[in-house]
Amino acid sequence: MIRFVFDFLSPYAYLAFHALPELAERHGRPIEYVPVLFAGLLNHHGQKGPAEIPAKRVYVFKDCLRTATRMGLPLRPPPSHPFNPLHALRVSGQAPPELRRDVVRGLFAAVWETGEGVSDPAVVERIAAEAGMSPEAIAAATSVAGKQLIKDHTAEALRAGVFGVPTMLVDGELFWGLDSFDHLDRFLGGTDPVPADLLDLWRHVRPSAGR
Amino acid sequence: MIRFVFDFLSPYAYLAFHALPELAERHGRPIEYVPVLFAGLLNHHGQKGPAEIPAKRVYVFKDCLRTATRMGLPLRPPPSHPFNPLHALRVSGQAPPELRRDVVRGLFAAVWETGEGVSDPAVVERIAAEAGMSPEAIAAATSVAGKQLIKDHTAEALRAGVFGVPTMLVDGELFWGLDSFDHLDRFLGGTDPVPADLLDLWRHVRPSAGR
Repeated sequence: MIRFVFDFLSPYAYLAFHALPELAERHGRPIEYVPVLFAGLLNHHGQKGPAEIPAKRVYVFKDCLRTATRMGLPLRPPPSHPFNPLHALRVSGQAPPELRRDVVRGLFAAVWETGEGVSDPAVVERIAAEAGMSPEAIAAATSVAGKQLIKDHTAEALRAGVFGVPTMLVDGELFWGLDSFDHLDRFLGGTDPVPADLLDLWRHVRPSAGR
Repeated sequence: MIRFVFDFLSPYAYLAFHALPELAERHGRPIEYVPVLFAGLLNHHGQKGPAEIPAKRVYVFKDCLRTATRMGLPLRPPPSHPFNPLHALRVSGQAPPELRRDVVRGLFAAVWETGEGVSDPAVVERIAAEAGMSPEAIAAATSVAGKQLIKDHTAEALRAGVFGVPTMLVDGELFWGLDSFDHLDRFLGGTDPVPADLLDLWRHVRPSAGR
């Protein structure tokens, strides 16, 4: 099992969503899709998101455009960004397992391919219905339990050490970002080169300067 | 010319320092080494460094260990981290152009290979002398002009849109991180795929949600 921790806000999560199945299938690992609120991770860590640092904001999209082109994927910005992703996250959280990937794919496409965005709840619900979700499952997204699910996923991700999206959680290890795919590939193939003694050294290194 | 913007604090900068010459030579570009104060970039952008987010701190070293192993480079943490890199930055800023790479290599090695660190000014000065720097050039590091140089480099990097290290500045473009080498390679080869119309769309996208 690979847990794919994502928020629709992240273009890197969109790219990773499309890149992961090939890698996962090659290692015989099913994917579990885990929608979390990226803003909740940032709040917890007292961190700014890439879109909140003007110099980084344009760089990130350029970087993603370059990678998307290399991958043969479309990439077009949504009408606004950052936007509130909660309804999209909650609806994807209520998708039954067999429809989950299609629902997530449709919502990612609305954000990063078609320019439609997911700020309008009616758009989110139309996409979910097109992917096969029942009206009852869609309605459950705004129930107390539907809202709590995303909070629970986010809290659980934080407990697992997640600080960004996309994150791939597998066998107690955490891989962050599209750039970690090579490392994830080696880890799943049993050739992950992390010398335990050096890692242990690092855990004991303390700061000698602050800001 | 490729301007390599770095701080000794960053293990990614250490790895990129060793990876860059092959790429630069292939495209016939000389490298200019530009020491900046990473903390100054973070302060300007109101951002936390990876080492300041506990969950990210261990991940980053693990990620670097994996990459270093793949690259065949040693990677061992310094005695403390974060540490104050100012003296090392200032000394490397005073190295004459023909010695600059050797001085920077020696200081990076003290931080990320030998476990010695660069918190002790005497160690920094010994390494600079071993690389061929004169006592006068080393002494210039602590002059008013020597201190100002690093401030100027940092301010100039900020004006160029730099938000992290390592950054490679080339022909008005900015490439951030070891992970951007593939993109940098294509850019230098004249096959950089950034569709201007899509990039322009992104520049005009505004937030519709904050935190």
